[in-house]
Amino acid sequence: MTKSVRIAIDAMGGDHGPEVILPGAALALAQHADLEFIFFGDEARIKPLLAANPRLAAVSSFRHTDVEIRMDDKPSQALRNGRRTSSMWQALEAVKKDEADAAFSAGNTGALMAMAKVCLHMIPAIDRPAIAVLWPTLRGESIVLDVGASIGADAQHLVDLAIMGSAMARIVLSLARPTVGLLNIGVEEVKGIEEVKAASRILRETPSADFDYRGFVEGDDIGKGTVDVVVTEGFSGNIALKTAEGTAKQISAYLREAVRGSFASKVGYFFARQAFQALGDKMDPRRVNGGILLGLEGVVVKSHGGSDAVGTARALEIGYEMVRDQLLRKIQNSLSDRGEADAARIAASEDDAVRP
Amino acid sequence: MTKSVRIAIDAMGGDHGPEVILPGAALALAQHADLEFIFFGDEARIKPLLAANPRLAAVSSFRHTDVEIRMDDKPSQALRNGRRTSSMWQALEAVKKDEADAAFSAGNTGALMAMAKVCLHMIPAIDRPAIAVLWPTLRGESIVLDVGASIGADAQHLVDLAIMGSAMARIVLSLARPTVGLLNIGVEEVKGIEEVKAASRILRETPSADFDYRGFVEGDDIGKGTVDVVVTEGFSGNIALKTAEGTAKQISAYLREAVRGSFASKVGYFFARQAFQALGDKMDPRRVNGGILLGLEGVVVKSHGGSDAVGTARALEIGYEMVRDQLLRKIQNSLSDRGEADAARIAASEDDAVRP
Repeated sequence: MTKSVRIAIDAMGGDHGPEVILPGAALALAQHADLEFIFFGDEARIKPLLAANPRLAAVSSFRHTDVEIRMDDKPSQALRNGRRTSSMWQALEAVKKDEADAAFSAGNTGALMAMAKVCLHMIPAIDRPAIAVLWPTLRGESIVLDVGASIGADAQHLVDLAIMGSAMARIVLSLARPTVGLLNIGVEEVKGIEEVKAASRILRETPSADFDYRGFVEGDDIGKGTVDVVVTEGFSGNIALKTAEGTAKQISAYLREAVRGSFASKVGYFFARQAFQALGDKMDPRRVNGGILLGLEGVVVKSHGGSDAVGTARALEIGYEMVRDQLLRKIQNSLSDRGEADAARIAASEDDAVRP
Repeated sequence: MTKSVRIAIDAMGGDHGPEVILPGAALALAQHADLEFIFFGDEARIKPLLAANPRLAAVSSFRHTDVEIRMDDKPSQALRNGRRTSSMWQALEAVKKDEADAAFSAGNTGALMAMAKVCLHMIPAIDRPAIAVLWPTLRGESIVLDVGASIGADAQHLVDLAIMGSAMARIVLSLARPTVGLLNIGVEEVKGIEEVKAASRILRETPSADFDYRGFVEGDDIGKGTVDVVVTEGFSGNIALKTAEGTAKQISAYLREAVRGSFASKVGYFFARQAFQALGDKMDPRRVNGGILLGLEGVVVKSHGGSDAVGTARALEIGYEMVRDQLLRKIQNSLSDRGEADAARIAASEDDAVRP
């Protein structure tokens, strides 16, 4: 029998806390019977929810914590007030102590990232964490990273993002060798940032067995699904993500207004309601809820603060897949292959240099 | 009687050339009878189109040019091959010689920007051009700049963008004192790029009579219409613009698929077709066609390369408004007001410094 996947949950994070997170865990459990949970948080709120759901209780334990990180705490405040004591910290620490295989939080992103760095440490050779998200596209789904973990990136960090993002894509998208693109701007006269160009050269010169680098992509390629993994630094990645969310909400609002407009359009809506339902499902942000913090010595899943139980379950399922399919080992292997390839490339160029 | 607005048109630019641009000019003329045009391009293609449209011909002249800039020419190539001789250059030069009040091109953006800089020069105190576009929002329309003219921006350039974008907003959006936001990312732990923070401090410390600075906005605020003018450097601005376009296309594709799906949805579409038409109009990119190159000593309008006659007309109308409402004078006035305010601020701080 395979081992269960154990997820340590910060039950106090997000806008709704345990009342949404525990039902979400129950939904995820219905999909994956080999899940186990440790809930960290306020006993008074968690215990009744577990009592009401015996199936969930059977695979769960909980640990009471007094301190919770607020959504508006600065990372430094969170570390000062919540290090060791908060539900967020303890969920991360459970991964460090190997009591859990992944940590989950719907709480304050900045605090989670700062705590994860301090508690779990970075993978050697990766200097900064990144946040990767699933992005619905016309072809299915792609992975976009970094959507805001850190601002700016040198060429090496962009290459690291390509490695980590494609490791994630191999798991979540079930692809043997995902395609990777670097986000850039196409206007000829500017030709993109120096770092992006340098990263592109490195990716072309040292091809990887684990992904297929396809060159530059532009903003509209994300929605088209031109590549499986879109790599960019956190500032533009965050702006792309939020802008797309804004545009989707804007069009949804137009659509609601359009079908409410007249009697005829209401009749039309009545007939076409299944089509609208299908459309709504496609645009449902819960379907792709769950950012993965990459670059850490542990799997950390960030759920959207406003998620409901369905969104929570989806984020937990992504975490489950990351553990089951060994995200960290895949990243490590890609990194060491690349290290060897780099060494070989350097050796080869030194050989060239000594030749007459 | 007021003077006419004279637009110099690069008739050879864009994917379709004169066959779309002249009909577009005719549509714009139907809206604004005080328009006049000078068409630069291939006589053999332009002459028959003018002959077929006597009303347009009555307000137009044309000048034959042999050289056209290709869509894939690099800016350096375009300058080498087309300086002085190309339809694009000559349209810009007509503005410089005061034979026209604005130049229009649907051609190669990079070439247009490079030629505009060389031919028209920058406004003193503005170091680099920017491209501003109208962006449809839930509140109406906003102006977003820079969407790709140049990568990166120091604090002063961001302040210049706020000044130029709000001058444009006062005209196109008919606002006395438009609201301005700086595009940033909201994740607490990173708090945005240094330059963006520094620009924000300058804008807060030196309020302008011409716009109302409202602080940081995020990607999803663009579609909401949180502010009238969204300021960002060209890399993230271009990515935001293209990502939004990609998302809109993606949702349109979902929508088409949904209404084609079943008999019931087709019936629904039949009843709701007016609502869908209204929705389509809202999402019609032609409605907001026409980027304005800002920072130059002249009004230059860039139409989308793939525009049809309706899109062309819209871009020409935006150019018309910029001239009629004196965009350049508004920018100059804001700049000199700000110069005085800066001087006063510096003098005040020196006063403080010499006080005991």
